[in-house]
Amino acid sequence: MKRTLVHSGSSTSLASVSSSPSFSPSFKDGPSESKLQASKSGFFARSFNRKNLERTLPILKWGPKYTKQKAVADLIAGLTVGLTILPQGLAYATVAGLPPIYGLYSSFVGCFVYIFFGSTKAITIGPTAIQCVLTNKYTSGRSPQYAVFLSFVTAVVTLFMGIFRLGFIANFISSPVNSGFTSGVALTIVATQIKALLGLKFHGEGFLVTAIGLVEHISETKKWDAILSLCCCVVLLSLKKLDLIFGCIRGKSVVLDKTLWLISTARSIIVIVVATGLVAGMGWDDNKPFSLVGNITAGLPPFRPPPFSIYEPADNRTHSITDILSEEASGLLVLPLLGIMGHMTIAKAFSGTERVDATQEITCIGISNAISCFFSSMPIGGSFSRTTVNAMAGVETPLGGLYTGIIVLMALQFLTPYFYFIPKASLASVIVCCVIFMVDLSIIMPMWRSKKMDMFPWAATFLVTIFAGLEYGILTGFLISTSFLLYYAARPRVKIMKGETSTGIEFMLVDLDRSLTFPSVDYITYEITKTAKRWGTSKTPIVIDCHHIQFADYTAAEAMRNMITSLYALGYSLVFFKLKPSVEKIVNGIMVNSKTPLILCHSTEDLEELLNKGIRRYSDVFQVLSSPKDMEIS
Amino acid sequence: MKRTLVHSGSSTSLASVSSSPSFSPSFKDGPSESKLQASKSGFFARSFNRKNLERTLPILKWGPKYTKQKAVADLIAGLTVGLTILPQGLAYATVAGLPPIYGLYSSFVGCFVYIFFGSTKAITIGPTAIQCVLTNKYTSGRSPQYAVFLSFVTAVVTLFMGIFRLGFIANFISSPVNSGFTSGVALTIVATQIKALLGLKFHGEGFLVTAIGLVEHISETKKWDAILSLCCCVVLLSLKKLDLIFGCIRGKSVVLDKTLWLISTARSIIVIVVATGLVAGMGWDDNKPFSLVGNITAGLPPFRPPPFSIYEPADNRTHSITDILSEEASGLLVLPLLGIMGHMTIAKAFSGTERVDATQEITCIGISNAISCFFSSMPIGGSFSRTTVNAMAGVETPLGGLYTGIIVLMALQFLTPYFYFIPKASLASVIVCCVIFMVDLSIIMPMWRSKKMDMFPWAATFLVTIFAGLEYGILTGFLISTSFLLYYAARPRVKIMKGETSTGIEFMLVDLDRSLTFPSVDYITYEITKTAKRWGTSKTPIVIDCHHIQFADYTAAEAMRNMITSLYALGYSLVFFKLKPSVEKIVNGIMVNSKTPLILCHSTEDLEELLNKGIRRYSDVFQVLSSPKDMEIS
Repeated sequence: MKRTLVHSGSSTSLASVSSSPSFSPSFKDGPSESKLQASKSGFFARSFNRKNLERTLPILKWGPKYTKQKAVADLIAGLTVGLTILPQGLAYATVAGLPPIYGLYSSFVGCFVYIFFGSTKAITIGPTAIQCVLTNKYTSGRSPQYAVFLSFVTAVVTLFMGIFRLGFIANFISSPVNSGFTSGVALTIVATQIKALLGLKFHGEGFLVTAIGLVEHISETKKWDAILSLCCCVVLLSLKKLDLIFGCIRGKSVVLDKTLWLISTARSIIVIVVATGLVAGMGWDDNKPFSLVGNITAGLPPFRPPPFSIYEPADNRTHSITDILSEEASGLLVLPLLGIMGHMTIAKAFSGTERVDATQEITCIGISNAISCFFSSMPIGGSFSRTTVNAMAGVETPLGGLYTGIIVLMALQFLTPYFYFIPKASLASVIVCCVIFMVDLSIIMPMWRSKKMDMFPWAATFLVTIFAGLEYGILTGFLISTSFLLYYAARPRVKIMKGETSTGIEFMLVDLDRSLTFPSVDYITYEITKTAKRWGTSKTPIVIDCHHIQFADYTAAEAMRNMITSLYALGYSLVFFKLKPSVEKIVNGIMVNSKTPLILCHSTEDLEELLNKGIRRYSDVFQVLSSPKDMEIS
Repeated sequence: MKRTLVHSGSSTSLASVSSSPSFSPSFKDGPSESKLQASKSGFFARSFNRKNLERTLPILKWGPKYTKQKAVADLIAGLTVGLTILPQGLAYATVAGLPPIYGLYSSFVGCFVYIFFGSTKAITIGPTAIQCVLTNKYTSGRSPQYAVFLSFVTAVVTLFMGIFRLGFIANFISSPVNSGFTSGVALTIVATQIKALLGLKFHGEGFLVTAIGLVEHISETKKWDAILSLCCCVVLLSLKKLDLIFGCIRGKSVVLDKTLWLISTARSIIVIVVATGLVAGMGWDDNKPFSLVGNITAGLPPFRPPPFSIYEPADNRTHSITDILSEEASGLLVLPLLGIMGHMTIAKAFSGTERVDATQEITCIGISNAISCFFSSMPIGGSFSRTTVNAMAGVETPLGGLYTGIIVLMALQFLTPYFYFIPKASLASVIVCCVIFMVDLSIIMPMWRSKKMDMFPWAATFLVTIFAGLEYGILTGFLISTSFLLYYAARPRVKIMKGETSTGIEFMLVDLDRSLTFPSVDYITYEITKTAKRWGTSKTPIVIDCHHIQFADYTAAEAMRNMITSLYALGYSLVFFKLKPSVEKIVNGIMVNSKTPLILCHSTEDLEELLNKGIRRYSDVFQVLSSPKDMEIS
């Protein structure tokens, strides 16, 4: 079915370099070979070979190489993360609108699961800012059982995505969208904490509602709460910047440096302990100048399956699983998707030159949630701040999670009685001083210098996230950035120039800069036709330089066929220069019953010869033969 | 801020051809120059120059060149279309669930408007199959005033899209999706007519409901209706294929040929007139063996503004404009969008090598609907079947519409009393024999040969259109075909080869086949890093061939920066070969504060020299200088 007229023998897939005789591309890339091998062996052999087993259970890879040094490093890192996770867990639970103890319920299973299934060393799984603020939307003012149910749903959706390898979806969130979204979430979380910081009480969540409520209720501020918040925040921020404050004595002693670092890293728990100690010591229980956390269930969480019907005191009825599913339809997808997205961002940031095994990481969140929801957990995922602490503490393997998990369990077993005295303002301060650094304005300048256009999805995501809600923010960003891709596909650059062979024969040279797809082909064929007609009287031959075209679809092939046919009928000749064989096949498939020849040419020498001889002559031969199939002149 | 190390002077935007000395690209394309000129002059000057005026009112262009011959051709074509539009109008109104007379109310304004504003010669605006079946969804069993209101909404939305030049949206419907959708619509319309064909009465519309209802109620078939339908269909199909039947005598006499063609083209009205005549002549009015159209309002439609509150007898209340808008929210956008899409398909099909002026055509539908809704019209647009008839009848200018419009007006004035006797079965036969040819299976074979993958959006659109509804069908097709585009953007081909300079220095050559965008860059950098490490011990220099890269976004630049930095830290050197200046700017914007140099190279000679000298040496110079800005060695 080939209609090739002129076909140079050499394959020129490496157009620009292979033309130079000094380079000799000699062997194919390894990766695709190894893929080929894998696909040859059967499904079971593939699933159970050593490499895949190690991929599924990375502990088999690093476990045997475990050393004493690594154990020490992991112990130190694990304990440090434990000191961070205790205050963060309690605080994040309040972000999710749950009793603080649920934060600890959610904090230990992920650590244990990641030991076996984690593919990076530093990631710590537990309650995260984004998931908590999303959970809040669905559980606010309702039974905590909703959060546990959400954790179960997250497990199901995430495992589904892991099994069907849908992790690539995270790649469709561009960096500016991700940044705008994270900043928006951070501000939203700060807004949810304003009330606790000032001891205010008014209805409503979200940035805008809080801002209005703040203005209306600012006079009701509880003095002691506000003072405590201010103190906590100042201490937290000072401790965070401890290395700057003590810059003069740094580097003089290793012990001193490490002590400073530890104080800085454990700042949250220090603040909480001191604040709680003060309150408890003062015995101000009855007067309550501070809003306290109050009574919470002591001890470890009960082990029981996630709830499939929830008794809701608010409307005094039991909600069945179908009720919940229909009420929260959108949340049930949004929460897992954003959980995965956040987790992938962290995984990428901490993987260095290693590529993140997206499927493995997603499966890992799925398993963590699946087990965790039996311990009354809310939805969990990778936490950016704790992962940073873990990496900075020098963790060597995921085993560090073991010590973190043990600390959480011990806190649940022995410390719960003391949680009564934790001032809410101190928890809010911990959150605010943690998430405020998620507001990422440092991306603006590079975007301005690099690609101004990308500031638009950033700003849109940021603003919509703040003012309309998280899920709308990320959706807006996704839609805008993908519509950029679609616009790019729809508006190629068609460069049309006049060319001349060495013997002085003029031709029209069309340079197409990207692949032929359905949104663009209409524009391309129009530009070519218009220009051809403008230079019309001489019926200049048209040479279309196709060496940038890697791909075409049916619509494009159809439009090309129509253009070739109608221009040919008007007396023009078209030559496709360096059309790739894969694209040629697509165009040819549609030209089978057409009487117009598809003239191809693969080298400049052939093109020159063809133009000098006159293309029409070839075409005439075609017309006379009327069966131009399989005819090649090379 | 340039970090260019090796920079060949010549700009090589036409990489493959300019390397050959025999071609000399000499001047830029005309089109973009003319655009430049237009944008220089002011807005008003632009709007009111002759060319733009002719674009807005194409009659100014063809009017002065009008000749007697053209007038004769237009008269014949206009009358022929008139004979088609009468039965089609009456029939399509029943598809829309309206009294048949509304079909004629909708048939004349479009013809008159198109004379002045139409940019192609053959298109005929009036009731269309797609718009009618969509209208039916919103007016079925309700007051016809809803259809008139929909026409008004179509006018508003369409004019908005015309003014803001949103016609390009139609380009995002690929050819297979369009074909699958049209076929699905055709079958849906056939399903709506089955009841009328067999004289059945049961509730429900749509393909699936009708199929089930047909099985349940088939025993209630009215004998005479079924017989009449069968006769009508046989006659209609025979007359359509008249040229085949009388093939032996064709070409012997021009008059005979033309008579045959006219009979074939006017087959619908012939069938209706004969069927109506038979029924009226037999005087079977009282016994009613046939279902008849029955009493309809006689005369021309009243001239009155479209309804902004509709009294609905069904629920005995008046619906205000806000009620209607909130009830029919989705329909209010879907109908105009699909109207535009259908119109653009027709315009493309009948424009030949001319490009369709999308904005003008859309504006034209908008104006037609805006005026038509004052005459109790349902939504209107370009009709494929009547446009074909018009073109085949040899129309020369849009003035043919004048005669079509006059025929419709005369029919309304003088013929309405006779419409009482039109058998519903004959109208249904006219529709079925018209739309059944919209089922387009001829696309399947070319798709199979050309691009098998495109059969999937075709099939999905077709099936969803039939089983779930028109709007879901087109949405499914759109989503699938654009996700193909996104997948294409996300999975580039990364070809990695070993190269060698003439002096035997090995390097790793990475060939990237398309632009760097956020969904793909993660994959690209991973492939490069992985292969580099596999060949790791020798720290082979890495040359990235970028000559296919036309575009990059911020996310891509960021990922490239991260890759360069981390590979550089591991001791690798990277050279970007033939990176376009526009892309260089984007990557450079993000590398400003990085200590890693961005090494560029624009010709094979420079690359060879660079590799022979050893790239690392250059990089070391950079490191020592520590301020590598604005340093160029060319």
